[in-house]
Amino acid sequence: MKCISILGSTGSIGTQTLEVVRQNGDIKVSALAANSNVEKIYAQIKEFEPKLVCLYNVEKAQELSKKLKEEGLTCEVTSGMEGLIACAGIDEADIVVTAFVGMIGIRPTIEAILKGKDIALANKETLVTAGHIIMPLAKEKNVKILPVDSEHSAIFQCLQGAQGNRPEKILLTASGGPFRGKKKSELKDIRPEDALKHPNWSMGRKITIDSSTMVNKGLEVIEAKWLFNVEPDNIEVVIQPQSIIHSMIEFTDGAVIAQMGVPDMKLPIQYALYYPERRERTAKRLDFRELTSIEIDKPDNENFPALSMAYEACRTGGSMPTVFNAVNEIAVDKFLRGDIGYLDIADMIGNAMAKHNVILNPTLDNILNIEDFLKHELAHYKTR
Amino acid sequence: MKCISILGSTGSIGTQTLEVVRQNGDIKVSALAANSNVEKIYAQIKEFEPKLVCLYNVEKAQELSKKLKEEGLTCEVTSGMEGLIACAGIDEADIVVTAFVGMIGIRPTIEAILKGKDIALANKETLVTAGHIIMPLAKEKNVKILPVDSEHSAIFQCLQGAQGNRPEKILLTASGGPFRGKKKSELKDIRPEDALKHPNWSMGRKITIDSSTMVNKGLEVIEAKWLFNVEPDNIEVVIQPQSIIHSMIEFTDGAVIAQMGVPDMKLPIQYALYYPERRERTAKRLDFRELTSIEIDKPDNENFPALSMAYEACRTGGSMPTVFNAVNEIAVDKFLRGDIGYLDIADMIGNAMAKHNVILNPTLDNILNIEDFLKHELAHYKTR
Repeated sequence: MKCISILGSTGSIGTQTLEVVRQNGDIKVSALAANSNVEKIYAQIKEFEPKLVCLYNVEKAQELSKKLKEEGLTCEVTSGMEGLIACAGIDEADIVVTAFVGMIGIRPTIEAILKGKDIALANKETLVTAGHIIMPLAKEKNVKILPVDSEHSAIFQCLQGAQGNRPEKILLTASGGPFRGKKKSELKDIRPEDALKHPNWSMGRKITIDSSTMVNKGLEVIEAKWLFNVEPDNIEVVIQPQSIIHSMIEFTDGAVIAQMGVPDMKLPIQYALYYPERRERTAKRLDFRELTSIEIDKPDNENFPALSMAYEACRTGGSMPTVFNAVNEIAVDKFLRGDIGYLDIADMIGNAMAKHNVILNPTLDNILNIEDFLKHELAHYKTR
Repeated sequence: MKCISILGSTGSIGTQTLEVVRQNGDIKVSALAANSNVEKIYAQIKEFEPKLVCLYNVEKAQELSKKLKEEGLTCEVTSGMEGLIACAGIDEADIVVTAFVGMIGIRPTIEAILKGKDIALANKETLVTAGHIIMPLAKEKNVKILPVDSEHSAIFQCLQGAQGNRPEKILLTASGGPFRGKKKSELKDIRPEDALKHPNWSMGRKITIDSSTMVNKGLEVIEAKWLFNVEPDNIEVVIQPQSIIHSMIEFTDGAVIAQMGVPDMKLPIQYALYYPERRERTAKRLDFRELTSIEIDKPDNENFPALSMAYEACRTGGSMPTVFNAVNEIAVDKFLRGDIGYLDIADMIGNAMAKHNVILNPTLDNILNIEDFLKHELAHYKTR
């Protein structure tokens, strides 16, 4: 029986992963880790009976521990980065699903790779900031990095038929988010509650904001560079508002291979968990008899400048993608708290990138120090 | 050096195959066969220096022979079915491109398979009428059947990434032809010159008419059944008027894999000749920055009934697809001569199918006899 460990089990990807496990019924959950949601992880423990769990928040972990004892459930509870690393490296697991949001996912991912576990990768920040460390390590340890993002899964699926032919171009699709077509003058007063409504995908809060600013697509460009070993200039973002085409690759003869489907994260999750086997899914299918067109548009780099910044960060390389990512995390948090305006998110990223002295081949400590430094430096930044 | 033999070298697929050969410069042409075009095959002989040629028409073959002697060119000239079979079975060839239109292609294709040559298949009638003979024979002789039709090549390309997962459905795309959206009342007075204008593809005369009546798509459904071992009810025709999506497959998890590109027959031809290697092509590419939508429609079975007849022929099996195909060949010829109206093409097919007593597992002789019988029976049929 295949065993998995899920880091970020109470989030959007984590809960959908558990749905896939429930639907298939032949995967054992060895470990679960989450940030602080006691109720949710408690219910998961009851249903999936993992051997080990972690709540990153120490107090919440203690609360969980107490609750489990009261209910007579036996399950080891850990906390903090140590706990996450223990969940990532647990002996039983064959695959570790890394679904944490943020740079907190890097160390556990490295631990899982060191232990030879395949990675079902849903944590973008790992490759964005530390791709130059992760990818060679995965190769050395003969570990598969199985993308869970719908776009990267689509590219990965298309590449299965490459037969040694290197794709010339990756066509990364984007919905364009809820504000596609709007001008900066209309965007400046966007409120968090507007930005939290994504037209096609139901996702976590941070990634929903990132989708609306095109930062998410920028992170995906950088991630694609590492996953598929392509230069950013060979990655083209194509706007596909309905999220039917999940991404494409183009070969040297002009043939384009695309993966399509209804927007449904459980498909790429399941594909990663069972790869290369495809399991049946009873979910809604793409019905071409109901479709009248697949819309295509180009990115609007003038009103949504974050995507160009991501390309710049990707071309510059070194520690620059870490700055792009870390400042965005800080800015989105501030935007959601009402401290800055919507357009300030990209402005903050641009300003920080302009000021940053690039470290060409940053160590993991360099990367995490840059994040800490930026958090500290921008702690009191406010525009409203 | 790879050696090929081209059956139907002066037609649309044949000349485009030679263009691919010219552009790549590393394939040797061992044999060329055509129907009767002396001038065209003479020019091809001069450029590609095959060892053997055939003109099916005996008088034209003699004319060619004389012309070659006068010009001091040495090349063996044959004629008739014997000549075609000699070209198909020539020792030197690794791949035989079967680009003849009509059932004339069946015997030479069988000869090539018996000699262990891979088939770049552009002759639809071979599989439509004799798929039950051809496919087991190809398997027995360990011969690859490499589809050249853009749709079947697309499906074949998509299947390269299947990794043992059987597709649940084949989504065969169709442009819908020049008369899409028209009603029977508007179609009844269509003239040959109207039907010979295809919106996207430049093809031979017969296949252009077949595209307009949807007979071509019907033949492709039957061909797909044999090539990919799927039941007709798992083949869905999707109208894609721009001919950008060349076809798709759908897996059990709902994932759809599509192959796209600008309409360009040289891509599937080149893919078949070099399979599994993809060679560079400098032709125009699909430019997603210029595209605003990929249109989708459903087949109109009321006004274009031939597609449903093809499904029926395919489900019935045995000799029924031969009747569908043979009567269509006869009817298109009559339509082009002005003997019948446009809507009579489908009517003739439907009437003949209704009258036919199915032979369940027809031999090659059965198949060819049915064609002869129908030609004879319908020889004097006229509605105008």
